[in-house]
Amino acid sequence: MSNTGITVTAATSSQHAEVVEVLVEAFYKDPGFVRVIPQPDENNDLLRALFGLQIELQYGKDGIIDLATNEQGDIVGVALWDAPDANHGAVDQVKLLPRLIKIFGLHTAKILLREFSSARMHPRFPHWYLYTIAATAQSRGTGVGSALLAHGIQRAGEEAIYLEATSTRSAQLYHRLGFVPLGYVPDNDDLPSEFAMWKPPAMPTL
Amino acid sequence: MSNTGITVTAATSSQHAEVVEVLVEAFYKDPGFVRVIPQPDENNDLLRALFGLQIELQYGKDGIIDLATNEQGDIVGVALWDAPDANHGAVDQVKLLPRLIKIFGLHTAKILLREFSSARMHPRFPHWYLYTIAATAQSRGTGVGSALLAHGIQRAGEEAIYLEATSTRSAQLYHRLGFVPLGYVPDNDDLPSEFAMWKPPAMPTL
Repeated sequence: MSNTGITVTAATSSQHAEVVEVLVEAFYKDPGFVRVIPQPDENNDLLRALFGLQIELQYGKDGIIDLATNEQGDIVGVALWDAPDANHGAVDQVKLLPRLIKIFGLHTAKILLREFSSARMHPRFPHWYLYTIAATAQSRGTGVGSALLAHGIQRAGEEAIYLEATSTRSAQLYHRLGFVPLGYVPDNDDLPSEFAMWKPPAMPTL
Repeated sequence: MSNTGITVTAATSSQHAEVVEVLVEAFYKDPGFVRVIPQPDENNDLLRALFGLQIELQYGKDGIIDLATNEQGDIVGVALWDAPDANHGAVDQVKLLPRLIKIFGLHTAKILLREFSSARMHPRFPHWYLYTIAATAQSRGTGVGSALLAHGIQRAGEEAIYLEATSTRSAQLYHRLGFVPLGYVPDNDDLPSEFAMWKPPAMPTL
């Protein structure tokens, strides 16, 4: 995993704060997050709080946080995953509820609805779930995303992977890596649609 | 659709009785049906009654029944489909309930459980559902199944198709036609497992 000088390792809990900063930097302009986070969100404090909770109570606990570092040892990207036996968000979001309400108040409903409507589309067949991949602004185009993705694909082996592509460009990238279309994730807003994709598991030996 | 001398057309209601006979002949030894139909089932009367109900209240009404005929005009196979906007069995099975209970009594629970546990695995993304393909005994190996399948694939066009393969051999056939694995359909019995497969829809233009 070092042909581009990028190394992928599991994040330690002492690196969680840095993980949150990479996510904030990557998504503070993302229409999906802008919609559910009350605006204006000065200094991205609310978005930071949301990612903080997800890392603390969800991906840092029951999920997997992959960290990409460059040759200088700087963190240049992160990927958040759920393993096949995880709850993929719906139940875990409920665990976040008390603290979400404390931070977001009535806005919590919007955040939860988005997660729920997304979670209920997950196939019922065992799969790894790639919740998100993010690269720092300076490192984009240096193969960080590809290195994180390759790492996750290798770990999944002959098991399936599910993800939601947020652009035609990324959907085509995933397609080249063996993912096939499932369909659009329903969204009752005017937001750019997400497109669900599936990396098939091994063929059966019935 | 005639390179093998097989023609595929929509079944008319006057052909429904023949459709049922093709299904009975194809499945009276099938372990999945033998398990849910009370045994002994003299002259396959109970299996015939089950298919009769499915044709009358379900596939002959809200679904699609494709009929394969040979050059002599004999019916040599059938395929039962649900279109993307159909309920794929779960709700429709409830409609069958009064008459199922009349025929199968307490055994109805076994039949419904099988259908429900299968229906809940269907992906939530729009898709055609191939419930079953059957060919008459004399016509097997003459391309009847392939002709019915080709007809359904052409009709689906760029839309997805979902099905459950019941053998490694059929899974491999579907794989060659563009289907990818989703995973095993859970079954709490010792039955041969079914393997869910997916023909992906067109790639997105987000």
